[in-house]
Amino acid sequence: MPTLRVELFEGRTLEQKRSLAKALTEATVQSLGVAASSVDVIFQDVARSDWATGGELWSDRKPG
Amino acid sequence: MPTLRVELFEGRTLEQKRSLAKALTEATVQSLGVAASSVDVIFQDVARSDWATGGELWSDRKPG
Amino acid sequence: MPTLRVELFEGRTLEQKRSLAKALTEATVQSLGVAASSVDVIFQDVARSDWATGGELWSDRKPG
Amino acid sequence: MPTLRVELFEGRTLEQKRSLAKALTEATVQSLGVAASSVDVIFQDVARSDWATGGELWSDRKPG
Amino acid sequence: MPTLRVELFEGRTLEQKRSLAKALTEATVQSLGVAASSVDVIFQDVARSDWATGGELWSDRKPG
Amino acid sequence: MPTLRVELFEGRTLEQKRSLAKALTEATVQSLGVAASSVDVIFQDVARSDWATGGELWSDRKPG
Repeated sequence: MPTLRVELFEGRTLEQKRSLAKALTEATVQSLGVAASSVDVIFQDVARSDWATGGELWSDRKPG
Repeated sequence: MPTLRVELFEGRTLEQKRSLAKALTEATVQSLGVAASSVDVIFQDVARSDWATGGELWSDRKPG
Repeated sequence: MPTLRVELFEGRTLEQKRSLAKALTEATVQSLGVAASSVDVIFQDVARSDWATGGELWSDRKPG
Repeated sequence: MPTLRVELFEGRTLEQKRSLAKALTEATVQSLGVAASSVDVIFQDVARSDWATGGELWSDRKPG
Repeated sequence: MPTLRVELFEGRTLEQKRSLAKALTEATVQSLGVAASSVDVIFQDVARSDWATGGELWSDRKPG
Repeated sequence: MPTLRVELFEGRTLEQKRSLAKALTEATVQSLGVAASSVDVIFQDVARSDWATGGELWSDRKPG
């Protein structure tokens, strides 16, 4: 029954999510000893303008 | 004060959500004895490419 | 696959949760036309001292 | 490490979110005594057709 | 209608949460122009053994 | 910045969570190419009496 909710910056490819869903599920199966079919993974894309760290939106950050 | 967050596949009609919000609220009122006005329902659409079960994205599943 | 997360004040009885889980699932099945077995309901108890409305914790509210 | 997740109606401007992220972070720093850099704020826009109170979607409400 | 969910390490005092709920609500009112009564704040305590950063549980960290 | 929230039945050992946090973080680093230090994992224990599938609480299920 484990359910994983993953908040990540938008812009990942379908292939990255496919790979991540698989890897997270395998990690859960191995560490908890549950059946793979009982594991749900839900991705929630977050825009850089919707995520702030230290009070500053990531869309406002200057590169390097 | 009960707050219900409903994750569901995207693609439901407005009428389905309207009906579901009403039914969930009535169920909560009856089981908990709270006022309807205190019940919030929030829908969160999830794309099939953002939800995996058993490590496989629903968008990758072959129909029956 | 619908997943319902229900935040509610702590103190409900097991019977209330049992009844509510059943009613929420039936409402979801009827409005969305999904199988009951695909519906998950998760309760999250919240203490009155962990919930504020209008900036005031519910544990600080004077009765009527 | 405090993480704040803010559900709000869609339609706020970038400036409102920028201002809110800053103010929420400052409030957290002052009340908890943590470093600003440890505070994350994540906004989740919700459409009026995805939020119901009292069983009625906000998109169905008649103005005053 | 804004709803703020705050995940924070367990161990804060009631006074800290009371102060934080008030400050977060005021910040939301000022930045968004909503009524204070429409703002909900929900605290979710997290044990140090339930939060990992960089793959390491906070309960496993050696003090500086 | 990826943040993973893991809902799982209560009763896992600290060692299982330690192992799972590590494995989930490594999976995220490999699939997304982010720094391990940017990955947060938060566990949320759920009692069997707080989780229903198909309208039935897991605490009410008869063993096989």
